[in-house]
Amino acid sequence: MSPEVPPEIFHHQLQQVLDLLGIFVFAAAGALMAVRKNFDVIGITLLAEVTALGGGVIRDVLIGAVPPAAFTDLGYFGTPLLAAGLVFFLHPQVERIMSAIDVLDAAGLGLFCVIGTAKAYAYGLNPIPAAALGVTTAVGGGALRDVLAREVPMVLRWDKEIYTFPALLGAGITAALIEFDLFGPVTATAAVTFAFSFRVLAL
Amino acid sequence: MSPEVPPEIFHHQLQQVLDLLGIFVFAAAGALMAVRKNFDVIGITLLAEVTALGGGVIRDVLIGAVPPAAFTDLGYFGTPLLAAGLVFFLHPQVERIMSAIDVLDAAGLGLFCVIGTAKAYAYGLNPIPAAALGVTTAVGGGALRDVLAREVPMVLRWDKEIYTFPALLGAGITAALIEFDLFGPVTATAAVTFAFSFRVLAL
Amino acid sequence: MSPEVPPEIFHHQLQQVLDLLGIFVFAAAGALMAVRKNFDVIGITLLAEVTALGGGVIRDVLIGAVPPAAFTDLGYFGTPLLAAGLVFFLHPQVERIMSAIDVLDAAGLGLFCVIGTAKAYAYGLNPIPAAALGVTTAVGGGALRDVLAREVPMVLRWDKEIYTFPALLGAGITAALIEFDLFGPVTATAAVTFAFSFRVLAL
Repeated sequence: MSPEVPPEIFHHQLQQVLDLLGIFVFAAAGALMAVRKNFDVIGITLLAEVTALGGGVIRDVLIGAVPPAAFTDLGYFGTPLLAAGLVFFLHPQVERIMSAIDVLDAAGLGLFCVIGTAKAYAYGLNPIPAAALGVTTAVGGGALRDVLAREVPMVLRWDKEIYTFPALLGAGITAALIEFDLFGPVTATAAVTFAFSFRVLAL
Repeated sequence: MSPEVPPEIFHHQLQQVLDLLGIFVFAAAGALMAVRKNFDVIGITLLAEVTALGGGVIRDVLIGAVPPAAFTDLGYFGTPLLAAGLVFFLHPQVERIMSAIDVLDAAGLGLFCVIGTAKAYAYGLNPIPAAALGVTTAVGGGALRDVLAREVPMVLRWDKEIYTFPALLGAGITAALIEFDLFGPVTATAAVTFAFSFRVLAL
Repeated sequence: MSPEVPPEIFHHQLQQVLDLLGIFVFAAAGALMAVRKNFDVIGITLLAEVTALGGGVIRDVLIGAVPPAAFTDLGYFGTPLLAAGLVFFLHPQVERIMSAIDVLDAAGLGLFCVIGTAKAYAYGLNPIPAAALGVTTAVGGGALRDVLAREVPMVLRWDKEIYTFPALLGAGITAALIEFDLFGPVTATAAVTFAFSFRVLAL
């Protein structure tokens, strides 16, 4: 329960860039759903924030890392605002590059299932529950978005898309790497790439 | 992260009266929705509790103030029971004064966005995330109510009512007052009044 | 707020067997709903985990017992996987013994409302809020399941089944027993049995 510093997988600045990129695309996906549902600018902003930060916030609350990083790092909090603004003004253009968004979203999924697992492990969880929280980090925000927007949560459906399974694989590989003391920048990148590729192939 | 005593904006007893009044009207709004949906007395009670206390509980969990005040102060917990009972027995009469309820609900909204921001700041958050939690305090319970009752969350909709925006303004003003060291009983009252008036004008 | 060791009502091994049995039947109920909604194996697993562990996780987060027991004890985490697997392969058979499942679910309801109240009290809550968290332990997972699967939460409905009320009685009796210093293995068993019987009679 004693919070240690979560391990950074990559060089500090690289990791931060990756984090913010992942948050940005998750937020854009949330904002787009809000636009399609004719929510107003407030609804777009709220759904962008919840989609982008929800998974990490749930993980942080469950491991006792409060206040969550999303509330202490202004970059985390501000990035969804930027994404919401862009989608608000440019959503026809954003819709047009939706397949590019899907690829970026897959990158976010791959990144967050690995990072989330590593952070939960650093807070003292066993590898298996840590992997469960890694999956939560990757798909939790989307699940909250779907509940708020009254969609059947994509994480539960299989007729639609294979979404949760790549995150589960990425988190499971990460847990195994940690268990066998093989977790480092190279293997972490491999795990991210694997989950990302699996998701992209399922698109 | 070390919980300090949250600052009380107003005189202790005045603040408690205001808190309980806000909780009461939020609870009444939740109970009324339950009645309209033909939920039973248990459903009315649960929805009253969730609507009245949900926003503050989410804030307290996120800032690490557990157990939340809603579970340690019997007044907080008991007030929604009272509101649920009144609505259960008198809902035709309560419906008739619904516009009065709406005005009281606006007062709760104004009060809680300011108090919530101040409490989050007192727990060490920066002003901007503190304002986000102030908004959460004001609208979170209603969002939970809408999700449980399977309504599109009012906080996301604009075709219906301008609900979240006044809370956002009130929380933003509070954060600015705190940032510039101007936060006190008088300015806090002004912020509450501003958010309240904005919401009432939008009714 | 200082976590004490939660009191075990029964002999350690007996309590663990009861806990896991309760988790198993809650998980089976969640998995069955997922099957009926045509969710895939991931959806079945997620809904089993959420239904079985959700109530206890919410309670643990609210009393500050993080990481929740569900994430530190592999038995808690693994049992829903087992239930999900069984339902996935054998759901026609499971459907056929649904009335048996309902009786076991009633046992889980009775057990968790009492255990949940006792644990919340052990973490320093007053008896009344502790009872509220006991009810949350018993019905919270089912509420999360219903929200994710887009059903009207059973806890709010009365046209369907008397579900929350027996949990409320069991938790209330537990709180009274604690308050009057009468809480022990025998009286706890009586409270569990009472809530269980009430629920079974309402089936």
